[in-house]
Amino acid sequence: MDVFTAIKERRSCRKFLSEPIGEDTIEKILEAAIWAPSPLNLQPWEFIVVTKAEVKEKIFSEAERCRKWGLEKSGWKWLESYKVDFLQSAPVIIAVVGDPKKTGLDMFLEDGGVGYQHACAAAIQNIHLAAHALGLASLWFTLFDKAAMREILGIDPAKMPLALVCLGKAGGESHQTRRKDIKEKTTYIR
Amino acid sequence: MDVFTAIKERRSCRKFLSEPIGEDTIEKILEAAIWAPSPLNLQPWEFIVVTKAEVKEKIFSEAERCRKWGLEKSGWKWLESYKVDFLQSAPVIIAVVGDPKKTGLDMFLEDGGVGYQHACAAAIQNIHLAAHALGLASLWFTLFDKAAMREILGIDPAKMPLALVCLGKAGGESHQTRRKDIKEKTTYIR
Repeated sequence: MDVFTAIKERRSCRKFLSEPIGEDTIEKILEAAIWAPSPLNLQPWEFIVVTKAEVKEKIFSEAERCRKWGLEKSGWKWLESYKVDFLQSAPVIIAVVGDPKKTGLDMFLEDGGVGYQHACAAAIQNIHLAAHALGLASLWFTLFDKAAMREILGIDPAKMPLALVCLGKAGGESHQTRRKDIKEKTTYIR
Repeated sequence: MDVFTAIKERRSCRKFLSEPIGEDTIEKILEAAIWAPSPLNLQPWEFIVVTKAEVKEKIFSEAERCRKWGLEKSGWKWLESYKVDFLQSAPVIIAVVGDPKKTGLDMFLEDGGVGYQHACAAAIQNIHLAAHALGLASLWFTLFDKAAMREILGIDPAKMPLALVCLGKAGGESHQTRRKDIKEKTTYIR
């Protein structure tokens, strides 16, 4: 699939078919992920591929807990009916974990280094594009507490669970979104 | 160009030809950038397209200052001879600026929201891939002080300059990098 097509067509999905994804497909997607650039090529990412129902259930419960927390904190009404059951139905969840020690020169900044997070986010975008090109839908999910997710997935306390990427065949229409025109977003200094 | 080809072929470049890039090409690249996903589709990115030599010179001076700061802080010898003159020679520098207010539910977290930064990083990855598909080389550069960059580019103090993306025709071999095997980076919970 053409790169521009993949970039423009890909949408977030919140409803997945339970049909499993082969590990060869997962590997193709992760092979795309790791070609993201990173500070000093430190490759600060790690991937935990979750297919076990029991663990997906724990992730779902944690997201539900955070949804309620979010509703209370924000007062945003849409959170009342926001369903996170895609965490149960998606056949695969890839947890993307970053290593704060692999961040390059920004580790010496006062506010700490986040370069490793940016690199992981670029890897996540590659995951989305690769998945779309392979006929899979995806969702970038971050509504969880880092400490809780470390416990659920057995992650080293020194590392940062940054996102859960749900993958699977779409079980309905993708979530349609629009974009503001680039003219509203761009300034030229000529 | 195929999306997997773009993802796997694209490399960082540190030497650019001065040959200008048409604004139609810049627009194609930014049109790819804005199709990145973002929390609640808030589209937290803004782009400043710099082609003016005088401003590139100021950016170069700031990077040089930070290089010296980095060398002093880190003691990393390679910084002694690290040239940042691509900031002068690249025909285009796109500053990617994020809006911390457009970050979604993580704004209520204790350690503050960085979701908007992740979205901007995904947009940057789209820029890299689109540029590569259009025959252009690119570099993701972050060695600058945020306050200094705000002053140089006239950025609202409430917004975050996250990266400078240099773009142009490659003026030599791209910087070759390897990747660790995905097996070293992946755990399965089946």
